[in-house]
Amino acid sequence: MGLRSDRRSVLRVRAGRGSRRPDALAVEEPLEIRVGGASRAITMRTPGDDFELAAGFLLAEGVITGPDQIAGMRYCDDGRPDPLQNIVDVTLRPGAGNAGDAAGPAACAGHGSTDDAAPERGVAVAARRNLVTSACGICGRESLDEVRMQARWSLGDDDVTVPLEVLVELPERLRTAQAVFERTGGLHAAGLFTADGELLVTREDVGRHNAVDKVIGWALTQGRVPARGLILQVSGRISFELVQKAWLAGVPVFSAVSAPSTLAVDLAGEAGMTLAGFVRDGGLNLYAGAERVTGL
Amino acid sequence: MGLRSDRRSVLRVRAGRGSRRPDALAVEEPLEIRVGGASRAITMRTPGDDFELAAGFLLAEGVITGPDQIAGMRYCDDGRPDPLQNIVDVTLRPGAGNAGDAAGPAACAGHGSTDDAAPERGVAVAARRNLVTSACGICGRESLDEVRMQARWSLGDDDVTVPLEVLVELPERLRTAQAVFERTGGLHAAGLFTADGELLVTREDVGRHNAVDKVIGWALTQGRVPARGLILQVSGRISFELVQKAWLAGVPVFSAVSAPSTLAVDLAGEAGMTLAGFVRDGGLNLYAGAERVTGL
Repeated sequence: MGLRSDRRSVLRVRAGRGSRRPDALAVEEPLEIRVGGASRAITMRTPGDDFELAAGFLLAEGVITGPDQIAGMRYCDDGRPDPLQNIVDVTLRPGAGNAGDAAGPAACAGHGSTDDAAPERGVAVAARRNLVTSACGICGRESLDEVRMQARWSLGDDDVTVPLEVLVELPERLRTAQAVFERTGGLHAAGLFTADGELLVTREDVGRHNAVDKVIGWALTQGRVPARGLILQVSGRISFELVQKAWLAGVPVFSAVSAPSTLAVDLAGEAGMTLAGFVRDGGLNLYAGAERVTGL
Repeated sequence: MGLRSDRRSVLRVRAGRGSRRPDALAVEEPLEIRVGGASRAITMRTPGDDFELAAGFLLAEGVITGPDQIAGMRYCDDGRPDPLQNIVDVTLRPGAGNAGDAAGPAACAGHGSTDDAAPERGVAVAARRNLVTSACGICGRESLDEVRMQARWSLGDDDVTVPLEVLVELPERLRTAQAVFERTGGLHAAGLFTADGELLVTREDVGRHNAVDKVIGWALTQGRVPARGLILQVSGRISFELVQKAWLAGVPVFSAVSAPSTLAVDLAGEAGMTLAGFVRDGGLNLYAGAERVTGL
């Protein structure tokens, strides 16, 4: 597995004076996600928990709805050295999910081998033309309709309640867990908590979508999707796509340190999701589903 | 043009007590970018400066290399009401750029009209299957090679120098300009400055890629690409893709309030770009091209 942080030489300037030293930076590397040997997405991510990232991404894309649809996952190298393990191939069970263009048997080396003239660059060129990414697939009203149909979970049925004093402490608990792993200043974090504030899992990534995909992928492999009764806490902002991911995973309460967008608030309202933002200094803003928060 | 911020009802909780009031949030809406009538990308963005966003995006994707390749841009509605103006169609001059799959004449209504059975959802479904986004098209070494060939500008030839005291003040100048427009707490900002600290343009967006695309699109339409002698300042972190965008626009100095990733630093080094991070409290870290910063 690749490194999550790595050192680069930096000229550190303080009070007008510079000193050169090595500095830890968050590692960013491309991950290609394949389904049955066919490229499905490329995302820039911090290495680690790649199988969870792939599982969470495929859930968010509607390719799978549960862990039993995944027959296996492995790193593959297309017959070339891939020490960074930047390609994951997911094999689905027969008849499961939406395998996209995968027609033949699952084979790591089966994709890209037709472009003999430019074997070194086939993947990149194909990626730029035909793949979706974790930031793709949004188109306003049509997409909102699509999500409403895809999401199998009625969050309104989840009658979990969360004490205010638990909710306001989650960012600090997430930061504490995050600090154990990385001190690069360059990583987003996401974590799943129980309603009494127990941290179940936390993941970090240079991409905030990836951090959420990793956490949801963990929940999926643990049989905790739908994530009834759980709280998803993130270190940054909340966009439409993150609410969409949370809804597809059946998360009833979504909390963030920073601001949501208009569309994130609107989708949370439609989903019956509790949405908290600006959780800091003992206070917070509730944009949807305020009835789940007790102690007000 | 759509709103950049909009109000939603929020339950604001401070010191354990809640009060309901309207709160300003950053607007997030999908923008579909078409080239010659064919869908090229969908990005979630804050409305405004959409033509600059489209121009900057197409430059970053290598579809165009200069403003003279664009014959025109317009909002289009596919014959349906589109009060939010969420589709921009770019017409290229004959023989210019890489028009992708656009075979017929440029026509807003020409795309999507073949799916008569589901006219309301055709765009969204197509988007999920065939489009790239601003976060797409990355594949490690292959992509780095690709950028090196695409970038027509040798940043090493740009002998601009920037005084340290100018560089450390740019984040505050960007924030001041940003505060004039938005107070939602939910927007990323990007700005172009001269080497003596004059702000030329600033743009905001829920997506940090979009903010940079808008600024670079502005530079393109002003005939300032390559952006010789200029500094690109952003409010957040620096990823590989942002350095790639800056390189393709010929920006010699890139500065950020937060951390860069490993791959961002490596690419800046290859490009001959000066890369500053953690620009705050009068200090900063120089990860590449430190020779352009004077006064140390």
